[in-house]
Amino acid sequence: MTHASRTLRIDLGDRSYPIHIGAGLLADRARLEAGLPAGPLLVVSNETVAPRYLPRLRAALAGRELRECVLPDGERYKTQATLARVYDALAAGRVSRDGAVIALGGGVVGDIAGFAAATWQRGIAVAQLPTTLLAQVDSSVGGKTAVNHPAGKNLIGAFHQPCVVIADLDSLATLPERELKSGLAEVIKYGLIRDAGFLDWLERELPRLLRRDPEVLAEAVARSCAIKAELVSLDERESGPRALLNLGHTFGHAIEAATGYGEWLHGEAVAVGLVLAAETSRRLGWLAAADVLRVRELVLRAGLPAKAPRIGAERALELMALDKKVLAGRVRLVLLKRLGEAVVSGDYDPSVLEAVLEAEVA
Amino acid sequence: MTHASRTLRIDLGDRSYPIHIGAGLLADRARLEAGLPAGPLLVVSNETVAPRYLPRLRAALAGRELRECVLPDGERYKTQATLARVYDALAAGRVSRDGAVIALGGGVVGDIAGFAAATWQRGIAVAQLPTTLLAQVDSSVGGKTAVNHPAGKNLIGAFHQPCVVIADLDSLATLPERELKSGLAEVIKYGLIRDAGFLDWLERELPRLLRRDPEVLAEAVARSCAIKAELVSLDERESGPRALLNLGHTFGHAIEAATGYGEWLHGEAVAVGLVLAAETSRRLGWLAAADVLRVRELVLRAGLPAKAPRIGAERALELMALDKKVLAGRVRLVLLKRLGEAVVSGDYDPSVLEAVLEAEVA
Repeated sequence: MTHASRTLRIDLGDRSYPIHIGAGLLADRARLEAGLPAGPLLVVSNETVAPRYLPRLRAALAGRELRECVLPDGERYKTQATLARVYDALAAGRVSRDGAVIALGGGVVGDIAGFAAATWQRGIAVAQLPTTLLAQVDSSVGGKTAVNHPAGKNLIGAFHQPCVVIADLDSLATLPERELKSGLAEVIKYGLIRDAGFLDWLERELPRLLRRDPEVLAEAVARSCAIKAELVSLDERESGPRALLNLGHTFGHAIEAATGYGEWLHGEAVAVGLVLAAETSRRLGWLAAADVLRVRELVLRAGLPAKAPRIGAERALELMALDKKVLAGRVRLVLLKRLGEAVVSGDYDPSVLEAVLEAEVA
Repeated sequence: MTHASRTLRIDLGDRSYPIHIGAGLLADRARLEAGLPAGPLLVVSNETVAPRYLPRLRAALAGRELRECVLPDGERYKTQATLARVYDALAAGRVSRDGAVIALGGGVVGDIAGFAAATWQRGIAVAQLPTTLLAQVDSSVGGKTAVNHPAGKNLIGAFHQPCVVIADLDSLATLPERELKSGLAEVIKYGLIRDAGFLDWLERELPRLLRRDPEVLAEAVARSCAIKAELVSLDERESGPRALLNLGHTFGHAIEAATGYGEWLHGEAVAVGLVLAAETSRRLGWLAAADVLRVRELVLRAGLPAKAPRIGAERALELMALDKKVLAGRVRLVLLKRLGEAVVSGDYDPSVLEAVLEAEVA
C-alpha cells in the first residue's frame, strides 16, 4: 500500500532530520525502519493513544525488539515522577545507545519521551510520532523536550532533536474536538508570526479544517511545519528568531500554571495568549483595534477561548517572570509589529503590560 | 594577593573554556567574576565541603545575588531525589538563563549540579569548582554530568560543558586520606592510557604525592587535566578517542553497583578496574605479566585496593552489560595495548573476559 505524503527537512548539520506528513504512515514499515536505529526500541505512549495506535505500530515493527511504556494521559502527569517511570522502562528494556525511544502520542508524551531520550545514557535517539494536531504542527518538531516543575511549565528540559518525525494524518480523525481546536491555536500562531497569506487562508478554510477535511488538514500541518522548520533551522537553541514561536506562550504558560496544569489545554491557554499579545501590541501602538478584533474573531471561530481566567494581575506577572525568556529580570515578550510579523522585545513600557493584565486577568 | 596558577584550555568552538589550577583560587574574586555570567547564582555544595569552603566563596562573591543548596554528602545521594532538591532551589532562587550554577565540591556535587544546570530551562551555565583530587583531575572537566539510576551508575545524564573550571589546590590539604587516594586512581589512569612518561613520574613521585607536596600535586593535576583536555577537545561526545578515559570504569561501575553506591569510593573501584583491564589485556596477549604487576604495585603503593570484591562473575557481566559503551549487545572494553597506550575494543574473545571474571570476582 502506498500513501501520498510530503516530506520536509530540518537543516541542522549532522542533526538534520526529515518530517514525513501523510495518511497511513504509522503502518508504513519501510518508512519507520528507515528512520530508526538498529538497537532496542522503547515506545512511550499514553492510556488513550496506546489502545488506538500502538497495535498498528507493533505490527509495522514486527520482528524488532520493542518495549512499551504506557503513561497516564494528561498535562498534569508531565512530571519528574512520570519521567522516572520512563527511565525505569529504559533500564528494564536495556535500551542502549544504539537503541531509540519512540514517542507515540501528543505533546505531553513527546516532551517527556524526548527528555528521557535526551538524558538516558547522556542522549539516545528519539523518533517523534505525533498523533495530535498540536504535536504534529508544533511540539514534535524542533527538539524542545521537557517536563514541568511545580514552579513552572517546561522548567526542566533539554534541546534534543529527533531522528525522524512521522505525522500520520489518520490519527487526527479520532482526535477529541477539544484537542483539535487546541492544535488550531498553534496553527493560527504561525500565520500571525510569519505569514499573513497563511492567515488569510486559515480564515477562509477554517470551516473545512473544523470538519477535518483531510486535504485541508494536510495543508495546515505542512505549512505550519514549514514555518517551524525555517525558524528552527535558523536558530536551533532559541538565541534569536526561534523565540518568535513563543507568541502567546508567556501569557499562556502563566494561565496554565495558575489554573493547575491540565484544566486548560495548552492550545487553549495559547489562544488567550495570542489575543493578549495582540492587545499588548495595540496598546504599544503597533496594531490597530481592527487587527486585534481579527485575531480575537479567528480564535473564537476556531472554538477557542479568547478571554483569560481571572488569575490576578500580580500573580500573572509573577508567573510570567519565571518564563525562560527572562533576561536581566525583564520579561521579554513576543509581540506583533503587524499581523504576519512578530518580534521579541524586552524593550517595552512595563506599565503597558501591567495595564493589559489589569484589564484582562485582574 | 596574587597566587601562582596555571591555565589550560578546552577547545570546543563556542563551548571552549579555561581550567585554572592554583592555590587560593576560591578567594580570587577577579578570577571568579571573569568566569561567571551576570545573573543570579546558585552554589550547590555538600554538608562536608560547605562549612569549610563556602564562606570564602561567599566573601569573594560579596554583592552578587547568591543562593545556596547544600546536599548530603556521598555517592548514595547522587539520585533523582537529590536532583529534585537542586531544581527546587533553582526555582526558589529564580535562577534564569542569564544565571549560573556553581558546583563546589567533589565528583558527586559536580555531576548533580552540572546535570541540573544542563536541564534547568533547557540549559544554563555551570562553573565547576572542584575540591577533591578526583574532581580536579577528572570529573569537573569535559562536561559529563549525571545522576545514578538504581539500574546503573550515571545512566541519567547529559553532556554540558562548564563555563569555567577553577581548581583550588588549597582544598586538597583537608581532603580525607581515602579521598586523596581515590583521586590518585584517576591520575594513574592518565599515565596508563596516554603517557608512559607520566607513569614513570608517578612511580617516582608517589611518596611526595601521598605527603601532599603542593608542587607535586599541582603537577599531577595539571598533567592529568592536559591529557583530559586533549581527548575531550578531540571528541566531546565520546564517539571516539574520549572513551579511552573510561579505562577501568566498566569494571569499576559494576563493583560500585554490586556493592551499593557509596561503600566503595569511585576511585577505589576504578583502581581495581585498572588492574582487571591490565589482566584482561595480558590474557589477550597484549601485556606482559610484568606490566600487570607494575600496575598492581602502583595501585597498592597508592593505598588503593587491587583486588575485586567477590560479586560473582555472572552478576558482574550483567552489570557491565548496562554500560553505556555497549554496542549491538557487545560490551566494549578499554584495554591496554601497552602501558601508556589504551584502545577501545569490542572485538575480543568473550571467553577471555569471562575467564578474568571467574578468576577475579567469582
